[in-house]
Amino acid sequence: MRSLEGRPDLCSINTATLGHRQPIAEVIEAVARHGFGGIAPWRRDLEGEDVGNIARRIRDAGLAVTGYCRSTAFPAATPAAAAAALAENRAALRDAARLGASCFVIVAGSLPPGSRDLGAARRQLEDGVGALLGEARQLGVTLALEPLHPVYAGDRSCLCTLDEALDLCEAVDPGSAGGVGLAVDVYHVWWDARLAAALRRAGQGRRITAFHVCDWKVPVTDVLLDRGMMGDGVIDIPGIRRAVEAAGYAGKVEVEIFSARDWWQRPPEETLATCAARLERC
Amino acid sequence: MRSLEGRPDLCSINTATLGHRQPIAEVIEAVARHGFGGIAPWRRDLEGEDVGNIARRIRDAGLAVTGYCRSTAFPAATPAAAAAALAENRAALRDAARLGASCFVIVAGSLPPGSRDLGAARRQLEDGVGALLGEARQLGVTLALEPLHPVYAGDRSCLCTLDEALDLCEAVDPGSAGGVGLAVDVYHVWWDARLAAALRRAGQGRRITAFHVCDWKVPVTDVLLDRGMMGDGVIDIPGIRRAVEAAGYAGKVEVEIFSARDWWQRPPEETLATCAARLERC
Repeated sequence: MRSLEGRPDLCSINTATLGHRQPIAEVIEAVARHGFGGIAPWRRDLEGEDVGNIARRIRDAGLAVTGYCRSTAFPAATPAAAAAALAENRAALRDAARLGASCFVIVAGSLPPGSRDLGAARRQLEDGVGALLGEARQLGVTLALEPLHPVYAGDRSCLCTLDEALDLCEAVDPGSAGGVGLAVDVYHVWWDARLAAALRRAGQGRRITAFHVCDWKVPVTDVLLDRGMMGDGVIDIPGIRRAVEAAGYAGKVEVEIFSARDWWQRPPEETLATCAARLERC
Repeated sequence: MRSLEGRPDLCSINTATLGHRQPIAEVIEAVARHGFGGIAPWRRDLEGEDVGNIARRIRDAGLAVTGYCRSTAFPAATPAAAAAALAENRAALRDAARLGASCFVIVAGSLPPGSRDLGAARRQLEDGVGALLGEARQLGVTLALEPLHPVYAGDRSCLCTLDEALDLCEAVDPGSAGGVGLAVDVYHVWWDARLAAALRRAGQGRRITAFHVCDWKVPVTDVLLDRGMMGDGVIDIPGIRRAVEAAGYAGKVEVEIFSARDWWQRPPEETLATCAARLERC
């Protein structure tokens, strides 16, 4: 396993970690100044901005783009809504390519209003990912399926485990031609007794495309917006990173922390410095 | 699948559904008066009570005891603490037998303070369940392993899925001699893409010992104490019950709703009447 101590260049900052409080240009500058090697912007960061200009700023700052967040929910109540979501996702995928992102993060979505049919939502997800895959390959941007913690199964992600995500990869890309892989976020997968086996399986297909860190605080008070800084929770982050790197992942370690009550209340400089200092806990 | 309409006798009320606000004798009387066929008390209901007396009251009311809740956490920071937990669980198991309970509900517990080692917690759980199994068989009370939703993996249950629970059953009872099985609670398992397969697997071993219902509200605001009444959330309860009964379960459908802000604020009579009316949603 690589040592991260004093190596922020091996790490990336997901802009959500800073709470989307500054213009993206300022965030790019601050992330680079702290020595990080990458950045992962969100679509909301680019609203009202020129994508080409932002891409140039990121390149000029010497930052890799470790991911572009994230897809519009695939499951939809009507065919028209599903088609609209797919169109939004195609547009976002093209922006990911213009940014030079290594992947477009796929957050599945889940039950449309009124539905209790998770199976149907999962089939819609598979159809949508399959429909995007050709363009993703042409653009050289991998679709990074990010299973979310099962606590979000009702409203945010019908894709709940790495094994499900790998099943989906194999369904749409049976020959392992590429273009589709996994975003492994410790917050979402740490509890899974099958985690080690799933990471080995992912390694066999070279599927791990992104690796996200934060921590799970105990007790959890807000499962959406109270994620912890690495070291402040109960996740065995080094153990998971060791397995992820043993599975062939050589990309950056991306810090993604949703923290409305804590880190988003602090100055971005403090959050970035703490992220750098806490890499030793990863 | 059995019809539950107008058949509260096929159902049981877990006393947590009423918020533990009344003496157990009053709860027994109310549950029987509403026509339910069973009750599942908690250890806290029996504090300061004579267990034999309560058992007699339940029998006289014509109620089955569909479970006794629940075990002390098995994973512990020290051998002494683990031994103390095991002693508490032995005592509770004997109370379950005196109550005539069909099962003693095993909620695993998870990481002891300071630990990040889920694997170690799981090994302690397996050791503890193995240590209780002989006495459980002698007493005729099945140990009902209840996997909890992964949102509780940090503090309440290192056992997160039905497949893990089945693995544990097979580890401690490889010959399927019995004495250990599952408590399937829709709240904890509904999200699992492997649910149907796990229930079929459970059926092959005749492992389903208890079946609990409530609902998952969207958005979820408090994962511990804001569970929904059946029909008020997104769980396909009939679909799960069909699979549970197809797997051979012929016991009662137990209503267990933790609802500090809603149902525990209402008169118990209203909660019980609503439970009976909502059986059609199950």
